[in-house]
Amino acid sequence: MDAAVHHEEERQDTSIAQVVNSELPEVNIVALLGGVGGAKLASGLAQLLPPERLTFVVNTADDFEHLGLHISPDLDTVMYTLAGLVNPETGWGIKDDTWNTLAMLACYEAPTWFRLGDRDLATHLLRSQWLREGFPLTWVTRQLCWLLGVPQTILPMSDDPVHTRVLTENGEIAFQEYFVRYAWQPRIKGVRFEGIEQAQPTREVVSALRNADVILFGPSNPFVSLDPILALPAMRRILSTVRAPRIAISPIVAGRALKGPAAKMMNELNMEASPVTVAAHYRDLLTGFVLDRQDVPCAAVIAEQMGIRTLATDIIMRDEPDRARLAREILQFALQG
Amino acid sequence: MDAAVHHEEERQDTSIAQVVNSELPEVNIVALLGGVGGAKLASGLAQLLPPERLTFVVNTADDFEHLGLHISPDLDTVMYTLAGLVNPETGWGIKDDTWNTLAMLACYEAPTWFRLGDRDLATHLLRSQWLREGFPLTWVTRQLCWLLGVPQTILPMSDDPVHTRVLTENGEIAFQEYFVRYAWQPRIKGVRFEGIEQAQPTREVVSALRNADVILFGPSNPFVSLDPILALPAMRRILSTVRAPRIAISPIVAGRALKGPAAKMMNELNMEASPVTVAAHYRDLLTGFVLDRQDVPCAAVIAEQMGIRTLATDIIMRDEPDRARLAREILQFALQG
Repeated sequence: MDAAVHHEEERQDTSIAQVVNSELPEVNIVALLGGVGGAKLASGLAQLLPPERLTFVVNTADDFEHLGLHISPDLDTVMYTLAGLVNPETGWGIKDDTWNTLAMLACYEAPTWFRLGDRDLATHLLRSQWLREGFPLTWVTRQLCWLLGVPQTILPMSDDPVHTRVLTENGEIAFQEYFVRYAWQPRIKGVRFEGIEQAQPTREVVSALRNADVILFGPSNPFVSLDPILALPAMRRILSTVRAPRIAISPIVAGRALKGPAAKMMNELNMEASPVTVAAHYRDLLTGFVLDRQDVPCAAVIAEQMGIRTLATDIIMRDEPDRARLAREILQFALQG
Repeated sequence: MDAAVHHEEERQDTSIAQVVNSELPEVNIVALLGGVGGAKLASGLAQLLPPERLTFVVNTADDFEHLGLHISPDLDTVMYTLAGLVNPETGWGIKDDTWNTLAMLACYEAPTWFRLGDRDLATHLLRSQWLREGFPLTWVTRQLCWLLGVPQTILPMSDDPVHTRVLTENGEIAFQEYFVRYAWQPRIKGVRFEGIEQAQPTREVVSALRNADVILFGPSNPFVSLDPILALPAMRRILSTVRAPRIAISPIVAGRALKGPAAKMMNELNMEASPVTVAAHYRDLLTGFVLDRQDVPCAAVIAEQMGIRTLATDIIMRDEPDRARLAREILQFALQG
């Protein structure tokens, strides 16, 4: 708790310039990420470290086909955020986008529950075409990032198709239906990742993990954002054999999810919506855990019961300086371990 | 010429209501059409006759794949026109459309010479998906028309792919490159219709032609809009054996094309840009020819040299009443033959 309080006080008069300019060793960071929360952490790290030091491994089990387009929601959110294009109101999609294709699709009585923006569509069109031409998703993602001027490395977790299926009270549905169409209202009973046994982490992902000095688990939903990455064959073995510190950031603060259905899912799965649940979920894979100072009592539980050291600080990222400040605290915590 | 003058005078005080309401026999009309000029004729006919009497057979040799989308420019132009959605400034595309997907495609350095509107994209997305799912273009077109409330029958000339290739001074290029990308500036030496030998007119097209009481050749480019339809296997034989009058409307007025490169092509192919050239081009297939009163001297040549009877009238369609007026004159001319 002392560390947390110390950091908190420091934050009060720390300008973004100071945060960015103060020295950090040149280390290779790999962060496993889902969508919006992960993208915020990525943008914090991007303010601190040279782009060649940063690799973001992104969940693709949310990917789906819609109107013949291959849509990769988490990859797009991370990419748009790092490109400075993201819609700041929502955390996903492109800022100042319009919805005229969608309006016309409505005239055709086509499904409109997935909110395709007009600008956003360009990404889906190009990705879909390149995938149809046989290029792997890793290649496509590199190309899109290069064209948008994103200098960091964004890697899909796999080039193979994996599809999260959500088992609800009313049967099993595709993840985007659960998440967008039904606004995560159905009670969940479990999730499964269709295709995960046949999927492989790419060699780029494996290589990045092996060369990492720090591996971060983003403040993303453990069940549907990070579990697909961790469920890839060999992934847990790789993560538990690398020497780099592995630090998770809690997506739960004071019993509530930072964003999305993580806390609701925990309740429905008969778990306590608490950082302790998150730490226990990753348990053996972690060497450290970052949680909010509102959850300081949990820090002691995690340290004592699981032998995982903790950092309690302010983990809610309200603005750009906040993201950089948190990223710095996380890295300092990771490297002092 | 007397008939033409007579009609011209009548037009001066003929309101659209009078044109529409006065009696026409219930006849089955089939019109062979290209894009903008053909669509105007179609909308004139649609003002006169019940929708079940009207079948439009549309060129699909302009169709092309672009960014993974199947685009059917002539089908769309006819469909948007009959749906009341067409951009009145251009004659193609959707009115009040926006260009934000295109702007984002430009950020990705993707080709933007084909002006994909945001609303227009919905049509291409649905058509492409349905074609990928294995539905024939005739089915797709019927579905799109039904959803847009177009009650007339729009038929693609074929469900098989045909691609117009334009032989220019600088080599052979795809039609849309010639037409849009290079704005029909390259001098042409000829055209060919790739795939035409393997393509078939659909049974819907053949059936419509066999049941037609009047067959019209729209005021479209003879070389690139109507020739692909006429070049389909068996098409010329079918057209020359049906009993219905076959009437062409000249796309050339006073040495100039109503729209597009028809006159320029004629010059480059060492033909005179004249209705005589058009009539000679279709020659054996026609029983009648409609041309502008500015070209009355040509009418005599066509009648005497080719034995095709003619109607000289005002064939420039400036507004909706004009379209209905011309359609009425053409039908009266066709049925009095």
